[in-house]
Amino acid sequence: MLVPALIERKRNGGALGADEWRELLTEYHQGTLPDYQMAALLMAVYFRGLAEEELQAVARTMLDSGRRMQAGAAARARADKHSTGGVGDKTSLILAPWVASCGVDVPMISGRGLGHTGGTLDKLESIPGFRTDLPLAEAADVLDRIGCVLVGQTAELAPIDRKLYALRDVTGTVESLPLIAASIMSKKLAEGLDGLVLDVKTGSGAFLTEPDQSVTLAQTMIALGEAEGCRTVALLTAMDRPLGRACGNALEVEECLMALQGQGPADLMEVTSALAAEMLVAAGAEASPDTARERLGEALTSGRALETFARIIDAQGGNAAVVEDPALLPQADAVEVFEAERDGVVTRVEPRTIGRAIVALGGGRSAVGDTIDPSVGFVITAKPGDRVTRGEGIASVFARDDAGTRLGLAALQDAITIGDDAGSTPLITHRITAAGVELLATPRRSA
Amino acid sequence: MLVPALIERKRNGGALGADEWRELLTEYHQGTLPDYQMAALLMAVYFRGLAEEELQAVARTMLDSGRRMQAGAAARARADKHSTGGVGDKTSLILAPWVASCGVDVPMISGRGLGHTGGTLDKLESIPGFRTDLPLAEAADVLDRIGCVLVGQTAELAPIDRKLYALRDVTGTVESLPLIAASIMSKKLAEGLDGLVLDVKTGSGAFLTEPDQSVTLAQTMIALGEAEGCRTVALLTAMDRPLGRACGNALEVEECLMALQGQGPADLMEVTSALAAEMLVAAGAEASPDTARERLGEALTSGRALETFARIIDAQGGNAAVVEDPALLPQADAVEVFEAERDGVVTRVEPRTIGRAIVALGGGRSAVGDTIDPSVGFVITAKPGDRVTRGEGIASVFARDDAGTRLGLAALQDAITIGDDAGSTPLITHRITAAGVELLATPRRSA
Repeated sequence: MLVPALIERKRNGGALGADEWRELLTEYHQGTLPDYQMAALLMAVYFRGLAEEELQAVARTMLDSGRRMQAGAAARARADKHSTGGVGDKTSLILAPWVASCGVDVPMISGRGLGHTGGTLDKLESIPGFRTDLPLAEAADVLDRIGCVLVGQTAELAPIDRKLYALRDVTGTVESLPLIAASIMSKKLAEGLDGLVLDVKTGSGAFLTEPDQSVTLAQTMIALGEAEGCRTVALLTAMDRPLGRACGNALEVEECLMALQGQGPADLMEVTSALAAEMLVAAGAEASPDTARERLGEALTSGRALETFARIIDAQGGNAAVVEDPALLPQADAVEVFEAERDGVVTRVEPRTIGRAIVALGGGRSAVGDTIDPSVGFVITAKPGDRVTRGEGIASVFARDDAGTRLGLAALQDAITIGDDAGSTPLITHRITAAGVELLATPRRSA
Repeated sequence: MLVPALIERKRNGGALGADEWRELLTEYHQGTLPDYQMAALLMAVYFRGLAEEELQAVARTMLDSGRRMQAGAAARARADKHSTGGVGDKTSLILAPWVASCGVDVPMISGRGLGHTGGTLDKLESIPGFRTDLPLAEAADVLDRIGCVLVGQTAELAPIDRKLYALRDVTGTVESLPLIAASIMSKKLAEGLDGLVLDVKTGSGAFLTEPDQSVTLAQTMIALGEAEGCRTVALLTAMDRPLGRACGNALEVEECLMALQGQGPADLMEVTSALAAEMLVAAGAEASPDTARERLGEALTSGRALETFARIIDAQGGNAAVVEDPALLPQADAVEVFEAERDGVVTRVEPRTIGRAIVALGGGRSAVGDTIDPSVGFVITAKPGDRVTRGEGIASVFARDDAGTRLGLAALQDAITIGDDAGSTPLITHRITAAGVELLATPRRSA
């Protein structure tokens, strides 16, 4: 294999064969292809993209490089959800136990937060004792017993993706749609899913700010999922504002506990229940989103969804008493209320500003390996479109000390705009399947 | 220095600062910046180019990473020529002693052949005993005594360029105009030149096939030279046919010896004397190309140019008797004459076909480190535009054995086209200086 010639072909806009990709990635994994050749190739892919066949070969090779979660003894249908990430994006913690309580297994492999977006593993680990690093066999056992397990990627799953992602992270080649799609899908497909729902966040607080890019990413991932026999559907959801009220790890867990009792904020409930309904349909457990919603409603009101979450926490070493007593979660030492400066209508709550402030408060990472403080963050009760009165408390900041609350109040001042009139932005704008794109609402262009 | 952020900025089309480039390259040289980050950055440069300030910082840092040839005791003006490479491109061996015999020092650092183009060092080494690997101090001594030295790049000159080129060679990032320009100029400027002439070959046998690209490369290199106080001028010359008649290392040396006696083929003499005249002017030794040509003519007819070559050969360990007796050069065992298949006019002699055939005959390299046979090659007497008669000998192949001559004859058959009419292609089409582009003749587009 003449590697420079392959790099040049990709660089010049040509395609590599499936066999060539398999050999390149396998040799890279084994260490016989050096990092510097792979780095140059990845940068060429950043500029030239991957043809559909190339993409499938890349994703398949990454998937085949590791083990897969075997079908359990119960042989229930399996579904999962992946989000491209946002601020206050806590739907995983709600829908995983919720869908599991409806009889569909959810073997969820998640990631950590980096930059301004949070990560499911960090949120879960704010529950005292909760372990996300279960070996594959133990995770399979929890899944089999409870119908849901919430873990991180291990060396056993898609190890080529792990090695490749570490290289992309230090070579400026993370932001490539096909590489992102292959990375996500190689891990998700290792879960042995029947159905997968993609929550493609779009807007100023998301990785992708424009709907066109989100549709492209969704279609790329859908093609990869369907090629492996996994029914894949995507919803494009708004990330021009935080989702829900709580932003910050322990605060978000507390909000999820509310949601699992049917008491979550309306926007969070709308997005989460739409994703959960799609999961039940994609897994083949329900024929339509409407019947799925009925089953989900019953799981919520009966308390089964919350109970399932308690069982998961217990099975993964956490203190399940948090479900009854959220005060057992880490609590911030300093809390301050942010008041509206004028009468008017909230026109904007900028999610990226909030996400960065959480990092600055110590609740997020600016580099892999940073430790985080789960207690800090924000609760922002005012939503775009809400009418507020001067002096009214519309948000709170949770910090370690007074310096933190000052920083947090300044960030809120920056993030929240109060005007005289606000246009409405729909929460869910597109539904995308292998069959095509369904426009559910007209998205607002990012400002 | 946050390297991934710098890679991303270049990738997104931004420019890095001069300090950032200096730090990146210096850390790479010292080994604290890993190969894989530099490889990704180089590929981003391939796609995004370098702004003029960036380019100057890169070239300057490479130049400053090594030593420079000090001004000699004689303190004569210094000039050199660089060619982007072609087939039968032997002008260096003629003009170096020629210009030196006119009182301008020529401290020429050259390269080896790779792919279908030859290299000056390989040609010189076909002279028995000739050493091109002189240490800098010894080279400076030869230059001081004789006014010319012909050597390869050592670890002492522009070492960052050496390391970077080796990385580019294996990562598909060689063909980047700014990186090519910086690499060439960092070595040439280490020679401490007053003037530099660039021979930018253009056409099917050259690295650049279109005049537009050649003009861009020339202007890029001129800007780098002028920024360091070296008067730099470029001629665009035709490489849609081999230059001169001889193609192959020892055969070309023999043709150079003829040329140094005023007996070279017309096309070779035209290009070489134009370049030599520009060298005298760029070095400030002559006011105009016309007066320079006079001085050059006198050096040729008096025998001083040839005598200077003999002294260089002697000083660098070679057998200077080859100047009187070219039969002392390596001789091929098998020689065959190629005859015109029909009456007509030669319309094409494809240089790339000839160059590749030399590699196949063992006279060139397909990989760095290949050893070469200096005796093999071609002498093609018929030029595009020449009228030929069926059965007339128009070329010869020089090989190791009969298999070689058969291969060579097949290549000649492939390379030489005889038709009924041939358009004329000018040899020298553009003259480019810091002041602008002068069109000397209208180039023919490559077929």
